[in-house]
Amino acid sequence: MSIAARAEDPTRWATERALLLWVAFANAHLLAEAESDGAAVARPLEVSPYAVFAAMQEAGVDDVRRVGVLADDAAGIAAGRKAGAGAVIGIAEDAMARELLRLAEPDAVVPAATFEALEDERYGSRRELRPRVLLNPGPALTTDRVKRAAAGVDLCHREPEYKALEARVRDRLREVAGVGTEWGVALVSGSGTAADELALVAAVRPERTLLVIRNGVYGDRLQAMAEAHGIATVTIDRAWTEAVEPAAVAAALAGDPSIDAVALVHHETTTGLLNPLAAIAEVCRAADVRLVVDAVSSFGAEPIALAGSGIDLLVASSNKCLHGLPGAAFVLVSPAGAARVAEVPRRSVYLDLAGYLRAAESGSVPFTPAVPAIAALDAALEELAERGLDEHQAAYRERAATLDGLIDRLGLEPLLDPAVRSSSIRSVRLPEGVGFDELHDALRAHGFVVYAGQGRLASEVFRISCMGALEPPVLWGLEARLADVLAGERVSA
Amino acid sequence: MSIAARAEDPTRWATERALLLWVAFANAHLLAEAESDGAAVARPLEVSPYAVFAAMQEAGVDDVRRVGVLADDAAGIAAGRKAGAGAVIGIAEDAMARELLRLAEPDAVVPAATFEALEDERYGSRRELRPRVLLNPGPALTTDRVKRAAAGVDLCHREPEYKALEARVRDRLREVAGVGTEWGVALVSGSGTAADELALVAAVRPERTLLVIRNGVYGDRLQAMAEAHGIATVTIDRAWTEAVEPAAVAAALAGDPSIDAVALVHHETTTGLLNPLAAIAEVCRAADVRLVVDAVSSFGAEPIALAGSGIDLLVASSNKCLHGLPGAAFVLVSPAGAARVAEVPRRSVYLDLAGYLRAAESGSVPFTPAVPAIAALDAALEELAERGLDEHQAAYRERAATLDGLIDRLGLEPLLDPAVRSSSIRSVRLPEGVGFDELHDALRAHGFVVYAGQGRLASEVFRISCMGALEPPVLWGLEARLADVLAGERVSA
Repeated sequence: MSIAARAEDPTRWATERALLLWVAFANAHLLAEAESDGAAVARPLEVSPYAVFAAMQEAGVDDVRRVGVLADDAAGIAAGRKAGAGAVIGIAEDAMARELLRLAEPDAVVPAATFEALEDERYGSRRELRPRVLLNPGPALTTDRVKRAAAGVDLCHREPEYKALEARVRDRLREVAGVGTEWGVALVSGSGTAADELALVAAVRPERTLLVIRNGVYGDRLQAMAEAHGIATVTIDRAWTEAVEPAAVAAALAGDPSIDAVALVHHETTTGLLNPLAAIAEVCRAADVRLVVDAVSSFGAEPIALAGSGIDLLVASSNKCLHGLPGAAFVLVSPAGAARVAEVPRRSVYLDLAGYLRAAESGSVPFTPAVPAIAALDAALEELAERGLDEHQAAYRERAATLDGLIDRLGLEPLLDPAVRSSSIRSVRLPEGVGFDELHDALRAHGFVVYAGQGRLASEVFRISCMGALEPPVLWGLEARLADVLAGERVSA
Repeated sequence: MSIAARAEDPTRWATERALLLWVAFANAHLLAEAESDGAAVARPLEVSPYAVFAAMQEAGVDDVRRVGVLADDAAGIAAGRKAGAGAVIGIAEDAMARELLRLAEPDAVVPAATFEALEDERYGSRRELRPRVLLNPGPALTTDRVKRAAAGVDLCHREPEYKALEARVRDRLREVAGVGTEWGVALVSGSGTAADELALVAAVRPERTLLVIRNGVYGDRLQAMAEAHGIATVTIDRAWTEAVEPAAVAAALAGDPSIDAVALVHHETTTGLLNPLAAIAEVCRAADVRLVVDAVSSFGAEPIALAGSGIDLLVASSNKCLHGLPGAAFVLVSPAGAARVAEVPRRSVYLDLAGYLRAAESGSVPFTPAVPAIAALDAALEELAERGLDEHQAAYRERAATLDGLIDRLGLEPLLDPAVRSSSIRSVRLPEGVGFDELHDALRAHGFVVYAGQGRLASEVFRISCMGALEPPVLWGLEARLADVLAGERVSA
């Protein structure tokens, strides 16, 4: 259900009801509006999961995740749950009746008077909260496997099964990174920005300087982090469309011995620009300066050679090119990086990389982790391992080529030179007379979510990302819709 | 399935298989070990969800969440998914075959040679990852509704449906807090500690002092946060078993005009001690000093009067007494608190309260949020609203009374005086000759997870928490097991 695989998926997702069949163990008259909105309705005499299955066969609905169950007693709720129904709603008029239903775990308990509004809002053809093909640079589409992992059993983070889960996630991240156990892995609950700050403030000793390379919003953000913590910075600034040259980094390091670390965004999500990571890492290695890399939107999709590269702290997150859910991020730390981190006094308690690394070494965690996000990341990394990293990255290159093709065929203008483009994001100039909001809303009506330009590019470009659980035919569908929309917009503008 | 409601639940959870029936659309011989472990096995001729249902009826298994489907082609995987099976496993020997199964979204794809190990590890009677009655102070047991919300549709955080979700969560938190929209709500992805630091570093102006009240690990942590950010502190220190007296706070404020804010832990999770929040808030209000309250483990369970109280920044998290999943935390900010936050230069980018508040006001978010944790919190708050806050808090008092009763009947010694005990945690002295690890492991074997003492109390006490989706009969079950275990331990010691 959650992999966007066919060209027709977006339209179907954009228009169809969530539930195709309601099984009423009570109050079938409440389903009149759902029925007029296209739902089949069944009223079995027996209250049991088997009655739900029989109603499905009768109605020709073969997917129980698209069946709702309505009940006014605990037995009906339990039957719906045991049948695996996609929604189970209890009807109760007072506190006592609600409490009786509660232990059977419905998705909601409402009085009869508000049921139809809830049905329309959550499950009807006009509902807002529905799957869409997410072409924003994360959170991306995830598979049902990943979501089911997040909805797994409740775990205490001090118990051995949680420790085993974290250890497995660390091992899997090292495998994707191609490094051994001499690299540390810090898992933090938060966004990629949290992990960026975790790494950055641990990389620079007091009274020393951080060199920040800036050619996008995220480079600016790294500098802002250093400033917020009173860390001195120098910068190399380039246009948002230009990669930084390794020679400029070498010159900056040669000219300023106070520089203790370099901060670089590998893939600027702002534009989809890739900086030359390997060559800059080599410069830092040669100068014996620590390199902090924000690989939040590249890790998994772009090949990155870590071992022996000169990269010391690499930051990424669960919900972009690894196809996990948002809520977890991490820092991979080289042996030289770990030595540096151990030298730097902590500048935060929550964002204290040394603390996370120490805890990981002792099989512990410093704070309550986002257990569901970690479990989802584990499932996503398992999927990636089943597919193979090479195949995963090849799929990204294929998607990016598909995007380049559609941009070309539609006569649109990409912002970046081909040489600096990533395999997960394209920035495209808004055609004359086309505003982003109109473009976005028109595509959204067909089930596609595209992303605005960022910062000063907001009025000039829009972004299409191809992260997550999606297949090329969906991008062909995007091409057709975009062609329609642009033709329409130009007429209306 | 996830509310611990009956005395027999823990034992059942601790011993039973996850899957009672396997439906084989291929390779039924792989299920011999599962069968010997107690699973029924069916081999339908037809590949369809209806075949799964027929097999359930045949085997007398009425809960599809306890049915596994094994398949070696995409049709079999799809049939398992559409049937709502609790597990769907693909068998494939090579990359091409795996890829063909992938789009149907199995829970895993493995070669035949490793299936039996996976079955045993994930679904068998000996598996480690299983539901247990979590009596640790969060993450707590959550209902299936909450988990299903976390596993909902993928959302982009810049789209209107995500903004509506966050706005609803903010409104629901204000409702639990009993405050109006003049209070700001910052939602942060991270643990309660992240939200503590978010609030703390925003509350103290440069060159001013923070007064930290310390009578447990979390008070110490608040001071450590201030120190990490170079904020001057003074402290009031009390034994971990003693609440601080409001008069001591008044005296400290009167004696030191540099004090800009006070930091107080309402409920010290270290011990289960409640500090006298209302009276201390009144002292701060009278002195016109901002009060930051860590209510991470009390919000929801203990009555807290916020409006006009003198509390300016109140911190709590999703996964303790609100019964959401871990990964989200929040700060409630009074109008006076917001005025203070606006005056303080930011000390972090990720942990910048002013930024979160500004974003919330404009219907935006500063960083990628933990969407599943926010959706789960929304569902948990909906449940709480259905039940009613008074009933929710009454249930906590009932559970705490049950714990006090069992401690008394078992001849155990509670650490704290009754006057300072919360309604969610009890610290109990380890009886002579009983080590925590032995006690923990013996109870765990029966499905209960209790928690170690913290810091210097680790060798002296253990903790029992009653947060989350559990009912009093389960605590009666705990009493019986604890009696057995203590009798056994004393003999063996």
